[in-house]
Amino acid sequence: MHTFADVLERARRTFPAEVAVVDGGVRLTHHELWQRCRQLAGALTAMGLGRGDRVAIVAANSHRYLETYLAVPAAGLVLVPLNARHTDAELEYALRDAGARVLITDRDPGCLAGLVDHVVLATEYDDVIASAPAADLGVEVTEGDLAGLFYTGGTTGASKGVMLTHRNLVANAFHMLVGARLTCDDGWLVMAPMFHAAGTIAALATVWVGGRHVMLPSFDPAAALDLIESELVTATLGVPTMLAAIADEQAARPRDVSSVRYLSHGGSPIATETLRRVQAVFPHAEMMHVYGATETAPIATLLPHEERHLDDALSRSCGQPAVGVDVRVVDSAGKALDVGEVGEVAIRGPNVMVGYWNKPEQTAEALQDGWYRSGDLGYLDERSFLFLVDRAKDMIVSGGENVYCTEVEDALYAHPAVLEAAVFGVPDARWGEAVHAVVVPRHPVLAEELAVFCRQRIADYKVPKAIDVRSEPLPKSGAGKILKRDLREPYWAGHDTRIGG
Amino acid sequence: MHTFADVLERARRTFPAEVAVVDGGVRLTHHELWQRCRQLAGALTAMGLGRGDRVAIVAANSHRYLETYLAVPAAGLVLVPLNARHTDAELEYALRDAGARVLITDRDPGCLAGLVDHVVLATEYDDVIASAPAADLGVEVTEGDLAGLFYTGGTTGASKGVMLTHRNLVANAFHMLVGARLTCDDGWLVMAPMFHAAGTIAALATVWVGGRHVMLPSFDPAAALDLIESELVTATLGVPTMLAAIADEQAARPRDVSSVRYLSHGGSPIATETLRRVQAVFPHAEMMHVYGATETAPIATLLPHEERHLDDALSRSCGQPAVGVDVRVVDSAGKALDVGEVGEVAIRGPNVMVGYWNKPEQTAEALQDGWYRSGDLGYLDERSFLFLVDRAKDMIVSGGENVYCTEVEDALYAHPAVLEAAVFGVPDARWGEAVHAVVVPRHPVLAEELAVFCRQRIADYKVPKAIDVRSEPLPKSGAGKILKRDLREPYWAGHDTRIGG
Repeated sequence: MHTFADVLERARRTFPAEVAVVDGGVRLTHHELWQRCRQLAGALTAMGLGRGDRVAIVAANSHRYLETYLAVPAAGLVLVPLNARHTDAELEYALRDAGARVLITDRDPGCLAGLVDHVVLATEYDDVIASAPAADLGVEVTEGDLAGLFYTGGTTGASKGVMLTHRNLVANAFHMLVGARLTCDDGWLVMAPMFHAAGTIAALATVWVGGRHVMLPSFDPAAALDLIESELVTATLGVPTMLAAIADEQAARPRDVSSVRYLSHGGSPIATETLRRVQAVFPHAEMMHVYGATETAPIATLLPHEERHLDDALSRSCGQPAVGVDVRVVDSAGKALDVGEVGEVAIRGPNVMVGYWNKPEQTAEALQDGWYRSGDLGYLDERSFLFLVDRAKDMIVSGGENVYCTEVEDALYAHPAVLEAAVFGVPDARWGEAVHAVVVPRHPVLAEELAVFCRQRIADYKVPKAIDVRSEPLPKSGAGKILKRDLREPYWAGHDTRIGG
Repeated sequence: MHTFADVLERARRTFPAEVAVVDGGVRLTHHELWQRCRQLAGALTAMGLGRGDRVAIVAANSHRYLETYLAVPAAGLVLVPLNARHTDAELEYALRDAGARVLITDRDPGCLAGLVDHVVLATEYDDVIASAPAADLGVEVTEGDLAGLFYTGGTTGASKGVMLTHRNLVANAFHMLVGARLTCDDGWLVMAPMFHAAGTIAALATVWVGGRHVMLPSFDPAAALDLIESELVTATLGVPTMLAAIADEQAARPRDVSSVRYLSHGGSPIATETLRRVQAVFPHAEMMHVYGATETAPIATLLPHEERHLDDALSRSCGQPAVGVDVRVVDSAGKALDVGEVGEVAIRGPNVMVGYWNKPEQTAEALQDGWYRSGDLGYLDERSFLFLVDRAKDMIVSGGENVYCTEVEDALYAHPAVLEAAVFGVPDARWGEAVHAVVVPRHPVLAEELAVFCRQRIADYKVPKAIDVRSEPLPKSGAGKILKRDLREPYWAGHDTRIGG
């Protein structure tokens, strides 16, 4: 197996003069990308960082983000990509939890600056990397070394640093190469944010084959289509909301998108109707559903040529286990279930994380006998096509972001007027699922007041899109547990959105 | 990483009812292939074989060969594929060296039967595998376990059992999948003999993605083309002589070969003229040069879209390091040389063998600091395209077979009339290189008599195609060593054949 350094090394040796990254007016060759990675490694070394030290980044997509993503692990350090949509409180939690020594950011670091030894602002980045001698990459780095901590969730205990090694991410690169069949002729549009597994799903793979990265700083359907046309983008992955917006824009103001041969989506449920609209405007592209998790680096299953299945039962599937990944459905004891039986989706392979940072209990719960227990409920058909039916974990996937219900409930309960609160996902054409809350108040309170209250505590995307204030008590089990499923059910009845992504 | 059992398991889980192998009138699904592998594993277990025991096979290509190739390692045993063109003396050497307990063969085993505990004849094979309960595959097999011993060369010390592990061959499967971009829609024609790395280069890869094997029992260009047409073959690899013969046959009696999208070659040098003729009759196929060695399982470098380079300098290259494989050119001390400098080709990666069976000295010589020293001389250009210029080892590659010159010289010297003998390769339109001998006799002898003499001792393909009987002494160095390069030179002057494959 290989490390990040080997991936960069191959690209600069085989395609030194070919374009590696296009980012606005900046075009870097593979040799330049490699050299800038060596410079960043040198600058971090000069700051006193050594083997295994953590380097956090909070930033929009850019060539500098890609350099950081590649160079930090290649230098034997550990990358900590943080969610740019998080509040300072949430970022502070992750910075402290990871013990990050450096923060690279394109925003005012504010109070976060005090938490790390060094802040590298995007405006200073080029000067910083030019200030120290370039360092060799990959020296004494082995495949079992930690490459990054990838945080899921927010401020509460639900937020965990997923530990991925070089082996994990290199394995995923192979899974991506085999699944998407990328070559040096491909140009990959980075559409999803790079702090997400969806945004970097093809990063190593694209560099390894000597392909091109085309950066989209922040999502905008018109800008995405303009880049597809001008940079001859061949492949990309988006969350469903992005694909829906692109389909609308392309239908309204068509560009030449004939270069696109591979169009994948993941991160949250997608409606078949959205797929139809995307397919109508990208008639030459193979569409692919990608299902996975940060914990699986991320690919678990793939549904190739999804466009051939819009009218059959497979349109509701997440696809088959990727080559290199084992997927089973298991009961609570971990026993593999038969075809058609619903259980928890379990995933095994060289891509599966080594654990959660400083969380031995959650790690032991999530990793059992080498299998990652995803928390998703589903079944496999007789050809191992995976169909998800629900999530075992109390979690919503909204616009590609995981929202842990307890965290939102905690925010609501902090308001003095809230007596009972239940948070769950409801189908939403734009977000796949929308965060929905039902609240029983102690004394009259407006939904809007509760939303403003939440917004001060948790990231915008976690704040309920609707808060239903009711006077009658919430339905409860004999043991007094709120029966959230009873509350959810009416919203999902007869709905054709697939779970998954 | 995975083992052979995981590859079989994925195929039967994801494509149970799809065709896995077409062999004459036999069509097996992936479920059937998996089941027959379990049965063979059960039969071998019932014979008393246990972890690490060796199972040899001498046979033409067939679905049974494929089953043996897959099932023996999956059962925790070690496969020993033997060259069907070898004499009994050569086969005996390998069987003894490997300590094989079982021989599976489609020929009369003759004196070889006494060397093993059990012989399974092809005619009895189906009964044998039906006679015992099927065994589970992959139980306690790990990626570091030996999967096979792959013999190079013949009866002399030059013949070595290359030890390849599950990790080695699974890594090569990934390299093949990334290089050839195989999917479940592919049908791979097994054209080269399966006792060679060229014959099984895509075996694991094809099964893993759920593709089809189409078996050609022994090479015949008309039969190959008939299968391509009738079975909609999409991809294959042949040695140059096979591609040349197919091109001639297709030009004379065209079939519909529009299904072929990938046409690769390796194993020996190929003339650009041959490539042109192949390209003319397969205008829709991507041509790819594959360079490697049994010791690298086998892929080292790939030249994709070779058909685009027939008129440029790259037509003489073996291509760039495959994704996942490191290739360097080193001096005798193992130091990496600069671009353009000629040295020995060294190869590193998860595909590189763990050593030669029972040959610690040759292993130490071939594997240095994790690099396999190939014995080939060449240089890398500024984009890591590899150009071979010669072989460091005294070896000829003729029609895809390695011929060690000393072995042929030993056979000649055994004849009472031979005073001096030198064997080397000369360019040959059909074989790439032909085995050529120059002999100085003690007393008059006919070349034909020497050839007949050799044929009794070594495999046909090793017998010199021409024996030049001279009266003057051979040119020698001051130390009295025959200057073979001086003898070779006139034959190669101005020749456009590329070394390699």
